[in-house]
Amino acid sequence: MGRDLTSDAPGAPRAAEAPEAGRGGPTRRQLLFGGAVAGIGAVAAIGVDTLTRRDDRPDATDEAAQALHGSLTVPFYGEHQAGVETPPQAHATLVALDLRPEVDRDGLRRLMRLLTDDAARLTQGTAALADSEPELAHVPARLTVTFGFGPGLVRRATDDAGSDGVGAGGTASVALPTWLRPLPAFTVDRLEEAWSDGDLLLQIGADDAFTVAHAQRMLLKDARSFATVRWTQTGFRRAHGSERSGTTMRNLFGQVDGTVNPAPTTEDFDGLVWVRDGWLAGGTSMVVRRISMDLDGWDRLDRGGREQSVGRFLSNGAPLTGTEEHDEPDFEATTAIGFPVIAEFSHVRRSRSDDTSQRIFRRAYNYDDAPTGDAVSESGLLFVSFQADVDAQFVPLQQRLDELDLLNEWTTPIGSAVFAIPPGCSEGGYVGETLLEEAS
Amino acid sequence: MGRDLTSDAPGAPRAAEAPEAGRGGPTRRQLLFGGAVAGIGAVAAIGVDTLTRRDDRPDATDEAAQALHGSLTVPFYGEHQAGVETPPQAHATLVALDLRPEVDRDGLRRLMRLLTDDAARLTQGTAALADSEPELAHVPARLTVTFGFGPGLVRRATDDAGSDGVGAGGTASVALPTWLRPLPAFTVDRLEEAWSDGDLLLQIGADDAFTVAHAQRMLLKDARSFATVRWTQTGFRRAHGSERSGTTMRNLFGQVDGTVNPAPTTEDFDGLVWVRDGWLAGGTSMVVRRISMDLDGWDRLDRGGREQSVGRFLSNGAPLTGTEEHDEPDFEATTAIGFPVIAEFSHVRRSRSDDTSQRIFRRAYNYDDAPTGDAVSESGLLFVSFQADVDAQFVPLQQRLDELDLLNEWTTPIGSAVFAIPPGCSEGGYVGETLLEEAS
Repeated sequence: MGRDLTSDAPGAPRAAEAPEAGRGGPTRRQLLFGGAVAGIGAVAAIGVDTLTRRDDRPDATDEAAQALHGSLTVPFYGEHQAGVETPPQAHATLVALDLRPEVDRDGLRRLMRLLTDDAARLTQGTAALADSEPELAHVPARLTVTFGFGPGLVRRATDDAGSDGVGAGGTASVALPTWLRPLPAFTVDRLEEAWSDGDLLLQIGADDAFTVAHAQRMLLKDARSFATVRWTQTGFRRAHGSERSGTTMRNLFGQVDGTVNPAPTTEDFDGLVWVRDGWLAGGTSMVVRRISMDLDGWDRLDRGGREQSVGRFLSNGAPLTGTEEHDEPDFEATTAIGFPVIAEFSHVRRSRSDDTSQRIFRRAYNYDDAPTGDAVSESGLLFVSFQADVDAQFVPLQQRLDELDLLNEWTTPIGSAVFAIPPGCSEGGYVGETLLEEAS
Repeated sequence: MGRDLTSDAPGAPRAAEAPEAGRGGPTRRQLLFGGAVAGIGAVAAIGVDTLTRRDDRPDATDEAAQALHGSLTVPFYGEHQAGVETPPQAHATLVALDLRPEVDRDGLRRLMRLLTDDAARLTQGTAALADSEPELAHVPARLTVTFGFGPGLVRRATDDAGSDGVGAGGTASVALPTWLRPLPAFTVDRLEEAWSDGDLLLQIGADDAFTVAHAQRMLLKDARSFATVRWTQTGFRRAHGSERSGTTMRNLFGQVDGTVNPAPTTEDFDGLVWVRDGWLAGGTSMVVRRISMDLDGWDRLDRGGREQSVGRFLSNGAPLTGTEEHDEPDFEATTAIGFPVIAEFSHVRRSRSDDTSQRIFRRAYNYDDAPTGDAVSESGLLFVSFQADVDAQFVPLQQRLDELDLLNEWTTPIGSAVFAIPPGCSEGGYVGETLLEEAS
């Protein structure tokens, strides 16, 4: 069950240089990280059950240091942004920003150059240029920062393209993917503006909550003359090393959640996730949904009822027709009296399509905020999915679930946003350059 | 620098039995945990750099399992409650409850029996009795639950003692420690009721945020017919294993915070922390202060100014008269032109007393909540201290800091509460029994 992730896969972490070395100048940094996604021949197999380091690392033979995961880093530069394929970290904060009215295309360039530089440094365990608390940057703990562009930002980037030439993305009508807009209304939605939309998204993830807090503050300090905070959502999964790696997450309903998620290592992952053409080539789309979970209502349901509503056993996530989590559900199986074993209304059946292109890559977090009044919890799922095309992949899936899914009884989407995730960049470049630089 | 914690010290974690074994019945549990604080001869040296397990554990030779810290448990039963001496976990949530008007002494007994049973199970990685999501209980990750009684609860426990005999604590005037009341007003305070006081405190700590969330929900479900949530405060420190064990925490100002904290292993710790007489014998007091930190103001100060205000170097926490974190500050040292090297107004000087009995044991967490409006952070310190006597130890210290401490410029206490922490209990007993059971 343990999943080994080799560093040749983009997004896989590398054993980090020590903080001291991280400040040792560009030559060493270039050697270690310049190659980024292309790889520098190093294979740092990572995973709790197979924690090893490169033999030429200074601490390779130091068994103690192997357990210290705070120094692990995920390459920043590359074809894709990190934080998509990266195995989810224990903590993530999503921050949506609204651009200030005066920020034009030039301003966006400055903003994204600044934030890219911050992220490139912080993710490698190095303080950002204007970091007032540089010591707080030295525990990267697999920090990734992923930038997403909302429709407002893309329009802003292209609206005034006429004044200084046409951007690589062309005019707004060309640059704006048809899916980059609020999702169609679903009957289950009870959306609150306070949790929806936004011009610029920061997804900040790390295995250490302190690392997330520092990176968040550093990025927001540099962003604040360009933008204001629209919403902030914080989520968690199991801590680094508290469970065996490869264990599928449970959500706060206790369900094993994400069994059939396409893995970044599978063959069709690239086609499902990465956009091929235009300024978004090498990028993807991100759907963020804040899904409130009625834990009290769920608790009133008996165990059998819950398993029926999902179509999986709560004990290990196996389909009701199987015994192991990854057993393929048998939708034809019937009970002695002829009813389907996996009910028509179950989540596992409703979320499947015969059309294998209608799949998404989920990377969700749990949230559990301070309850108010008589409530004993304010909890739910910070649903995040990546897919090449929102309209072709996410929307039909959500429409099926909207029509019929017993889980709708206990879950309510209260926030929703769609972002374009630009491709990654190389050292010297910046995230968003394919949209913001002129065509030449 | 690495600090080894032996399991003979109360509060030190033991290598846990696997979740399966945790459900294996009382005999095995009794064998492993019944001895609790007295110890069963096992020494599970814990710490990232010396992670070892007892040789007779099933997974003792399994190197992979050694890195999995989710199964580590802290004994629940014992002379003292866990969560005081326990090395601070990565995450903690403090919840203050207000008792419902109808809850009398009998009700308090029922409540504390229930919550004690929940905590005893959950901390050992076993589902609570009415746990609707038992699978979520199987990663204890050093979970501790510590109960604190506010003045309202102690009064409630003793007010109607006349009707069914005098409690072990006697009448309210006897049972209520003089220090169990709101702290005296300090000029720096800007207290908000929403973050202050409370009848019953739950301090829930674990190295896994998911574990905290599940324990919190389980306890609040069982408490809700007795009490309502008054406030909830969530904090974090570095993740388990992201830094070497024994590393002193930094706060969000980047300061090394807690260098001179008395360690549970030092000789005078018991006298400073544990109450000796009455129903609180083996217990302590807890001060909770929510201290908002003005990170923007702090950032405007240059590095020298910050180091002056604290009296320590930011790089490693060494006093300005020394080179290593644990060097003793030399308050007599002067600069070439005769000024003290460690300024009169510095925090390190103001927080010291010549009277060594005026010390407290701190166990703080950082907090970083979602910012609102133009703010880029809503951050601070969830200050927690334990001491045998609030009036004799905490109050004089805070009065000195209130009079003069340059750090006051950037810190503002916005919440304050004082709780009595009852002693621990044995299996079959419950936390609070020394107050709530009749004298015999």
